[in-house]
Amino acid sequence: MAKTEWAESPSDLLRARAGFDLASIDPDGTPGFGGGKSDGRAALEAASARLAEFQEQLWAESRSGRTRSVLLVLQAMDTAGKGGIVRNVVGVMDPLGLHLSAFTAPTPAERRHDFLWRIRRQLPDPGIVGIFDRSHYEDVLIHRVRGLSSPEVIEERYGLIREFEEEVAASGTTIVKVMLHVSSDEQKARLAERLDRPDKHWKFSLGDLDERALWPAYQEAYQLAIERTSTPDAPWFVVPANRKWYARIAVQQLLIDAFRGLDLQWPAADFDIAEAKARLAQS
Amino acid sequence: MAKTEWAESPSDLLRARAGFDLASIDPDGTPGFGGGKSDGRAALEAASARLAEFQEQLWAESRSGRTRSVLLVLQAMDTAGKGGIVRNVVGVMDPLGLHLSAFTAPTPAERRHDFLWRIRRQLPDPGIVGIFDRSHYEDVLIHRVRGLSSPEVIEERYGLIREFEEEVAASGTTIVKVMLHVSSDEQKARLAERLDRPDKHWKFSLGDLDERALWPAYQEAYQLAIERTSTPDAPWFVVPANRKWYARIAVQQLLIDAFRGLDLQWPAADFDIAEAKARLAQS
Repeated sequence: MAKTEWAESPSDLLRARAGFDLASIDPDGTPGFGGGKSDGRAALEAASARLAEFQEQLWAESRSGRTRSVLLVLQAMDTAGKGGIVRNVVGVMDPLGLHLSAFTAPTPAERRHDFLWRIRRQLPDPGIVGIFDRSHYEDVLIHRVRGLSSPEVIEERYGLIREFEEEVAASGTTIVKVMLHVSSDEQKARLAERLDRPDKHWKFSLGDLDERALWPAYQEAYQLAIERTSTPDAPWFVVPANRKWYARIAVQQLLIDAFRGLDLQWPAADFDIAEAKARLAQS
Repeated sequence: MAKTEWAESPSDLLRARAGFDLASIDPDGTPGFGGGKSDGRAALEAASARLAEFQEQLWAESRSGRTRSVLLVLQAMDTAGKGGIVRNVVGVMDPLGLHLSAFTAPTPAERRHDFLWRIRRQLPDPGIVGIFDRSHYEDVLIHRVRGLSSPEVIEERYGLIREFEEEVAASGTTIVKVMLHVSSDEQKARLAERLDRPDKHWKFSLGDLDERALWPAYQEAYQLAIERTSTPDAPWFVVPANRKWYARIAVQQLLIDAFRGLDLQWPAADFDIAEAKARLAQS
């Protein structure tokens, strides 16, 4: 087996199942992939065309009236590499078929609605691959850690999220939820790099350090959120992310596997090909 | 000079100026670029990082409160290569900073508003590169060719479009309007290829042949639209597009030149770097 092949599928290896324990997952790991960094880069490149073709097929079938879509939910501690996933994995797909939503702190108008309101508005249309850069999970993560909502409200939200995602899945959207899992030390190194590079200063704020101080509470909040909301319809995958190259190929494979499950086909022509050729020849 | 360099800028060479004459532009041409196909591909690859960095800077400055944006308007006859521009030129930029809008026939709800209503709703936010795949120009192109609006209404629209684009430019949006210019023979060959490939059938409809039959009328409508609406604030560029590789590097350079005009800088840190480093070290 070439070093750019997977020994086992990340969809199996990284899925959060009953008994899930975040603390036992090594952020330095590269489960299922035997190669190193250069192999990883080659694997990313090699599978990009496949991913792009799947996305084109999804878009193509929507032109023929099908209504399926894909939604990738990205959650992570700061610096874990969401941006790199968007640029290097998602970015190979046709911009025409992507809808990316970055969920920052809700606006006053958004706060006047229930927490899923702004999320529903960004669900992918038929044929589209939606990407959530952060998501409704902030309402059970930062809300829990910072006490922005009561424990009872947070508890209720796990159930609301499960129902919501079940409904979204039933409407034809394949949901892939990813937590990029970095270590606290790795975050420290990445923040230090941002501080050393003037072209990265804009990505930094002192508030990042306040959040960092709450690391253990966030890990606990992730543990709870993932165990309460990983369902067959909307599974969570925890992707070791200390090695950026690994996180990228793992998420790429998760997307490819999600597309495979759709059994996509090029739509058949809805016109007479011979007639079209004859008319074209005469034109 | 290497064969991957431009002898003269496409922003100068391809701009529609007073006395513009579409019929005199050779769709097979490669103005300003001395190399061939493989040089073109190398040039595309070589300039991609520059384009991506500009876009990141535009996004970065918007995080610091600036409100500038870029808008690329793509118009062309069918098969001219808009999709390839989006995938191969636009696609190298971060999906986070892109907003792509494909304008097909307006919905009944959209028809109840003036023709610019749906366009305004898709204008790029601060920091964003907006891409219009077709645009408000359809309202003076297909509308003229098919008689969907009266000559008086079309005449009025040229003025409304000039005023609209002046306002958009004044609000901080750099507008680049591109017509991809293919020949009728080249379209015929590309449509024939679509008919020969089952993975391309979904892109074809018999209506494409009806549009093709109106080729001369469309050329006339483009001539008029371009001469009436090419302004210093919102110039038109007519890009020879029989060679896809040339059209791609030309549009790439038009975008790079538009970004250059913005004199983008990385935002300065709005926090005390030494303090941040000290706090990070202790964390």
